[in-house]
Amino acid sequence: MSESVQLIPGNSLITATPQEGRELAIKMARLIIKVTQPDDEIRGRLRGVYAEDAAMLIAVGQTVATEFATIAAANNYWR
Amino acid sequence: MSESVQLIPGNSLITATPQEGRELAIKMARLIIKVTQPDDEIRGRLRGVYAEDAAMLIAVGQTVATEFATIAAANNYWR
Amino acid sequence: MSESVQLIPGNSLITATPQEGRELAIKMARLIIKVTQPDDEIRGRLRGVYAEDAAMLIAVGQTVATEFATIAAANNYWR
Amino acid sequence: MSESVQLIPGNSLITATPQEGRELAIKMARLIIKVTQPDDEIRGRLRGVYAEDAAMLIAVGQTVATEFATIAAANNYWR
Amino acid sequence: MSESVQLIPGNSLITATPQEGRELAIKMARLIIKVTQPDDEIRGRLRGVYAEDAAMLIAVGQTVATEFATIAAANNYWR
Amino acid sequence: MSESVQLIPGNSLITATPQEGRELAIKMARLIIKVTQPDDEIRGRLRGVYAEDAAMLIAVGQTVATEFATIAAANNYWR
Repeated sequence: MSESVQLIPGNSLITATPQEGRELAIKMARLIIKVTQPDDEIRGRLRGVYAEDAAMLIAVGQTVATEFATIAAANNYWR
Repeated sequence: MSESVQLIPGNSLITATPQEGRELAIKMARLIIKVTQPDDEIRGRLRGVYAEDAAMLIAVGQTVATEFATIAAANNYWR
Repeated sequence: MSESVQLIPGNSLITATPQEGRELAIKMARLIIKVTQPDDEIRGRLRGVYAEDAAMLIAVGQTVATEFATIAAANNYWR
Repeated sequence: MSESVQLIPGNSLITATPQEGRELAIKMARLIIKVTQPDDEIRGRLRGVYAEDAAMLIAVGQTVATEFATIAAANNYWR
Repeated sequence: MSESVQLIPGNSLITATPQEGRELAIKMARLIIKVTQPDDEIRGRLRGVYAEDAAMLIAVGQTVATEFATIAAANNYWR
Repeated sequence: MSESVQLIPGNSLITATPQEGRELAIKMARLIIKVTQPDDEIRGRLRGVYAEDAAMLIAVGQTVATEFATIAAANNYWR
């Protein structure tokens, strides 16, 4: 991992709305995949694999749910 | 991901009842799958796959449970 | 999902005892499977599959553990 | 599930020590498997399967870790 | 499970440093595997399996992360 | 495991920014894999396996998300 890769857009967990928090969760999950597999071509190919695989789509959802739990707590659930 | 896709119906984690919180968890889990695989036809086909696969049904349950944990905390557990 | 399906018996996370909280966790996990696969016959067949598969039984346990964590927090751990 | 099956020994999450909390986590995880597969003979056979499978042993550990997180919180971490 | 097996070294979640907390998480995860598969010879063989399997190594990491979350909370994150 | 292996760089969960917290989560996840499989050559080979496998990349993301949840809580979410 190059330390200079941006892992959290804006370098903050605070967002204005739940919707933006959810978008951040998706981006954070994708950036971990990017830092683990930096090759754009390979990553693009793998995206085609998991986007058509039911089990992997569910697993993507599990990861986003875990990232979102952290973001939601950071924002006091936008109460 | 198009940023304009609605990821949280109502853009809020607050719900009137646990039942509605549970429905929100299901919807949020499904919207992540939708944003990852936007093609309606492919998604419909994959739904047929996981709805008849015991392991995947359990995995769906795991994801909904994680989403619901966040929603329940946001609502102070509807105490 | 039909919104009218009951997803949380009693529409509350509050239970009198840990035992009842555990029973609620099991029911909530099963109701997610039911809402994802509403066909009783298929669900009965799949139950026969996971009840004899060690890996799936462990996965069921993981899901129930996650649901129970939420219920236990809702009840202040019945302290 | 028969509602009368004991799911939490002692019907309490409170234990005297972390060791006892850990033992409770293991028992709670096993009781979910028991309630999902009540047949002693089948369960004994499946135990032989997962006890010799590296991936399943790791998955058992994940489930116990999740149950223990709840028990530890219930006991204020025995601080 | 023999109740007399030590499941948490020192019978406490409190550690002096994050490093020691991490070591405790690893030990706790291993002791669950030991209590589930008490045979040293079989366990040694399985260790050879998961130590050379990428997916299982990742799963070990997931379990340790979950154990560590509990230990870190118990120690108020060593703030 | 040799107890002298560094498992948490800096022996602290406290970081200046979310970005640094994310980098720490990645490092902590990798150090667990390193302590479980200390052989550099084997680990390098396995990295080649999971970096080209969609399901494993998702699983890496799940583990990092769990580590990050702990680090974020330790830092009061850098609010």
